[in-house]
Amino acid sequence: MSGEGAAARLMIRAGAWRGPTAGLAPGFVQANLVVLPAGSAGDFRIFCERNPRPCPLLDVTTAGCSVPDPGLAANADLRTDLPRYRIYRDGRLAEEVEDLLDAWQPDWVAFLLGCSFTFEGALLAAGIPVRHLECGSNVPMYRTTVACRPAGALAGPLVVSMRPIPRGLVAQAVAITARFPHAHGAPVHAGDPAGIGIEALDRPDYGDPVPIEPDEVPVFWACGVTAQAVAEAARIPLMITHAPGHMLVTDRRNQESLGPSARHTPPSVL
Amino acid sequence: MSGEGAAARLMIRAGAWRGPTAGLAPGFVQANLVVLPAGSAGDFRIFCERNPRPCPLLDVTTAGCSVPDPGLAANADLRTDLPRYRIYRDGRLAEEVEDLLDAWQPDWVAFLLGCSFTFEGALLAAGIPVRHLECGSNVPMYRTTVACRPAGALAGPLVVSMRPIPRGLVAQAVAITARFPHAHGAPVHAGDPAGIGIEALDRPDYGDPVPIEPDEVPVFWACGVTAQAVAEAARIPLMITHAPGHMLVTDRRNQESLGPSARHTPPSVL
Repeated sequence: MSGEGAAARLMIRAGAWRGPTAGLAPGFVQANLVVLPAGSAGDFRIFCERNPRPCPLLDVTTAGCSVPDPGLAANADLRTDLPRYRIYRDGRLAEEVEDLLDAWQPDWVAFLLGCSFTFEGALLAAGIPVRHLECGSNVPMYRTTVACRPAGALAGPLVVSMRPIPRGLVAQAVAITARFPHAHGAPVHAGDPAGIGIEALDRPDYGDPVPIEPDEVPVFWACGVTAQAVAEAARIPLMITHAPGHMLVTDRRNQESLGPSARHTPPSVL
Repeated sequence: MSGEGAAARLMIRAGAWRGPTAGLAPGFVQANLVVLPAGSAGDFRIFCERNPRPCPLLDVTTAGCSVPDPGLAANADLRTDLPRYRIYRDGRLAEEVEDLLDAWQPDWVAFLLGCSFTFEGALLAAGIPVRHLECGSNVPMYRTTVACRPAGALAGPLVVSMRPIPRGLVAQAVAITARFPHAHGAPVHAGDPAGIGIEALDRPDYGDPVPIEPDEVPVFWACGVTAQAVAEAARIPLMITHAPGHMLVTDRRNQESLGPSARHTPPSVL
């Protein structure tokens, strides 16, 4: 058990923090949240499994259960422990709320997906600059022409995030992020944006543009927004996510470069 | 690709075989089928993952898709390629049918689970007798007092199958079956049936009793009927299974003691 992640969740649950979670409980894994009705959750789960780079699964709950794997976040409640949520209807943002206590339904299934905060901390620790953090802006994200592996009606392009990295540090940035397969892992592309169908780096599809210096290479990582973009494209009648940047803070340390929660491949109890 | 499994499926699809599949395409893995509406499929999947000994998952389809992983059974259609199916409503057997072409619904999710045929072949090959095969009867199965790990509303006792093994061959039987973790693996118990809450070996809860000779030890393996018993106990409104012994014949060889289908932990395509 780690006090800091739990303390951050309790502070949020008490209503004492409604801002972005970057910087809360530094060193602990933060997770993206996606909630879907059980009828559409199975295909989404298979989509994540087939596209583990953009959608690294940390946990999946049973229907109606808002309590995630205690090994990931002890005593957490996904209805209250994130600062802000977004409710999408028919693929469009319908509402932003501060908890899901009233909205929660007995057939809702929650997914927790790994997030790039994990590897950004490791990049910074190695002295590799992370531009959007320097700028105090959102990371720039782009739709690519790389197709995800579809699952049922869920199909669409891979979305990537981009970080400009000094040319001499690219190899090190690859090596560092590769250690975190459950936080998107190694980059999927570096260099010419056209190679993955990106037309203009200064016009990201999500987030904010960042300057690229002459000695820097744009480096692209698979991005969790892929899941959201695909679910939106499929016009899923109801989907709930965390508000961007307002994540679940877990009890798992970033350095534990673990696989999916033990819950997914449990040793037999027999 | 292996012709024998595919040939068995085509024969069944053509209506030329409606009997049990034991003995068809010897050496190839056969699989249990469970079909559930998408709304109840997620919890069933988590139940299987939490109880891999009785419920070893080989494949899960997306909603409405009756085509399993081609790496497990190429060009198969789960609506037609098993000889006989059972439809349960509210936990009770409602109907037995020879195909699911008319019944199939766009929200149905199919699960394929490993089966003990795989390890029985290996026992026989090693010269270890398999009593119910000698008797030409069904394997005896028992409810135990060992609780499965629950998943949502799905909870219940582990069901085991029993095979009497000559005392001097028990260790070998354990070693052989342990090689097949996706066909129930090593025994969960051997010896005194009371140790797992079985009162009378001559009164199995499912299947037929078999004689036990004085030099033999009853050996118990986790059994796929667990899934069915638990789903029935939860009174799931609709569930479809293969008729007992009327399995899906796959293209995978028994000797490939593989983990879950590559579909579940696919290498990234990126």
